[in-house]
Amino acid sequence: MKLSQIGELSLLEQIRKRFEKHPPNILIGIGDDAALIKPSHENLLVTTDMMVEGVHFSLSFITPYQLGFKLVSVNVSDIYAMGGKPKFLLLNIAMNKNTDKKVIDSFFDGIHKAMKLYNLFLVGGDLSASHKGMTLSATLMGYVKRYIKRSGARIGDRIYVTNNLGDSACGLELLKRIKRPISLENTTTPPLTPPTRGGEYFKISSPLRGEGEGGGEGLSSKFRTLFSKWKLSWNDVEPLLRRHLMPVARDSKKFVRNATSMIDISDGLLIDLTRLCDESKVGARIYAKKIPLSSELKKVASNLGISPMKSALSGGEDYELLFTAPAEKKVKAIYIGDITESKRVIVDAAGREKTFSAEGYQHFGVQR
Amino acid sequence: MKLSQIGELSLLEQIRKRFEKHPPNILIGIGDDAALIKPSHENLLVTTDMMVEGVHFSLSFITPYQLGFKLVSVNVSDIYAMGGKPKFLLLNIAMNKNTDKKVIDSFFDGIHKAMKLYNLFLVGGDLSASHKGMTLSATLMGYVKRYIKRSGARIGDRIYVTNNLGDSACGLELLKRIKRPISLENTTTPPLTPPTRGGEYFKISSPLRGEGEGGGEGLSSKFRTLFSKWKLSWNDVEPLLRRHLMPVARDSKKFVRNATSMIDISDGLLIDLTRLCDESKVGARIYAKKIPLSSELKKVASNLGISPMKSALSGGEDYELLFTAPAEKKVKAIYIGDITESKRVIVDAAGREKTFSAEGYQHFGVQR
Repeated sequence: MKLSQIGELSLLEQIRKRFEKHPPNILIGIGDDAALIKPSHENLLVTTDMMVEGVHFSLSFITPYQLGFKLVSVNVSDIYAMGGKPKFLLLNIAMNKNTDKKVIDSFFDGIHKAMKLYNLFLVGGDLSASHKGMTLSATLMGYVKRYIKRSGARIGDRIYVTNNLGDSACGLELLKRIKRPISLENTTTPPLTPPTRGGEYFKISSPLRGEGEGGGEGLSSKFRTLFSKWKLSWNDVEPLLRRHLMPVARDSKKFVRNATSMIDISDGLLIDLTRLCDESKVGARIYAKKIPLSSELKKVASNLGISPMKSALSGGEDYELLFTAPAEKKVKAIYIGDITESKRVIVDAAGREKTFSAEGYQHFGVQR
Repeated sequence: MKLSQIGELSLLEQIRKRFEKHPPNILIGIGDDAALIKPSHENLLVTTDMMVEGVHFSLSFITPYQLGFKLVSVNVSDIYAMGGKPKFLLLNIAMNKNTDKKVIDSFFDGIHKAMKLYNLFLVGGDLSASHKGMTLSATLMGYVKRYIKRSGARIGDRIYVTNNLGDSACGLELLKRIKRPISLENTTTPPLTPPTRGGEYFKISSPLRGEGEGGGEGLSSKFRTLFSKWKLSWNDVEPLLRRHLMPVARDSKKFVRNATSMIDISDGLLIDLTRLCDESKVGARIYAKKIPLSSELKKVASNLGISPMKSALSGGEDYELLFTAPAEKKVKAIYIGDITESKRVIVDAAGREKTFSAEGYQHFGVQR
């Protein structure tokens, strides 16, 4: 059945029924002119993000379920990057009237999965026909006591990231070559291996991992041939695909006490570090050999002939946190460099300094 | 210059500079991962609305300035409909990369005009390329002490609307025949005439009226010929065009004390009254002869051969408020009927009752 046959009002009613349960601090949820939320003594956070088909995603690469999940994660990441707790979600969805009901259901399943993961409640939204592809936007509100701005980095602070970088960009590269969406809902992922170089390691903890049984089921034989040509197994590629298709936002609560500035890495380490430095009016020196790379990234990137370091520095969509903290504070994250007075440089394995900037991030290709 | 030549980051920077001024309760405005707002002792309201090119608007009918203005008004209307004060705005804009910079500037001028009118502050947003037309969405937050739900109507309550209905729909009809956008920024509007029938009259007070000099300037001679064929003057059509292109949301503060339920009329009186009745689990009896119609609507509709009453009942986009209040309360709005036990009926001029429903609103054509 197609969207045009269901009708907007009937679909809205279904969505409303599915998401209407809400805690007592939401006085009015979906279904009135506006949602109504009781006052809180904490500061209010609000962020919004848009995803446009053909610009931010292609349904040739991502399933509707993954898309719904990712739309929520991307916004949650922004709330976490302020040190906050995400709470209330609003969705605006424009999709072609010929969209199949199964696609819509699957999309909302992904939204729902992410909402449960992050403990969110849907309080509003709008649904419309579109002429061509899907345009999605989500607005997310949350609360924060001690908030972390981009602008708080001080000279001498250390620069940290919360986990491996570049996996997502390499996952996207894989998808561009595989040229089809891959369901990950029923596969098991082995825990990511610790970065072989770089600072302290801490385990990724995604509630999504370990669900269901089996690995890579449903892969066609054509697909297996491709893998064998690349000399890669499902276990090599699955973590990278997952990081791209179903990113789990990194909760900042462990870091909030010591962090002086924070941003989430959505456009790539170099561009987001530049933003943080611009806002803080400082410089940065980071060390290529300290950038954490997963063993999967290194293996897959090498077999595909791409640079793992380039993925990590400028690939984007990592949704890890980048933050600074005073050098004397003990911080359980990966130390990658230091805040300096003004220059922004990366030190390669041979000890040579190269400057970087937001504009140049796409052309940046430091080799380890 | 086109959007693709300016670049997303540079445009974001311009928007940020233009809108960065904010009051002290906004701790962080545009430019971080999320906006940050100090706690308030009042309840928080939030609403969101989307406008898709080719679905909700056509740039053949509306100027970018008017579009920006309307996008804000539509959301403000939802906050007013809860009895609230609008405050914080977020915008998501997807537009083609070939969009001219002048179009973008004009769009933001319209946004800005409306923000000043309603005293709003921009706290966030997202900007993206689109493949085809524009997709716009706005999220608006506000505060409310005493809030009015859709569900509070009681049997015996009177039903009120805040002003003339149908002007906007008739304005759209005009635009469909004129087939081009019409700038209203530099024209003067005579005050709307009081409805000749219907309940109490109160003056529309739009700060937009009376700006600039002259009326209908810039109208081509082709355009004047069209008007003369219809036997209409600029003064007849301007108020109707304005109601459609640059609607001013109706502040509810005068009605909040007495209202038992409230909704804004966005989809047409009958569909929105049905929604209010559904939520309140009541019926309604309204009187066709009490529905307020402007003299401009009656004249223009008659000359174009359309039904003014149909415009008023099911035309939509009026952005007037529809509310109920106990019969004994003195209310300065237009009384159009009463809340009853269950049936939803409209009484025509001859005293005949006809039932109405949300589904049937499009085909409903009561004659006065």
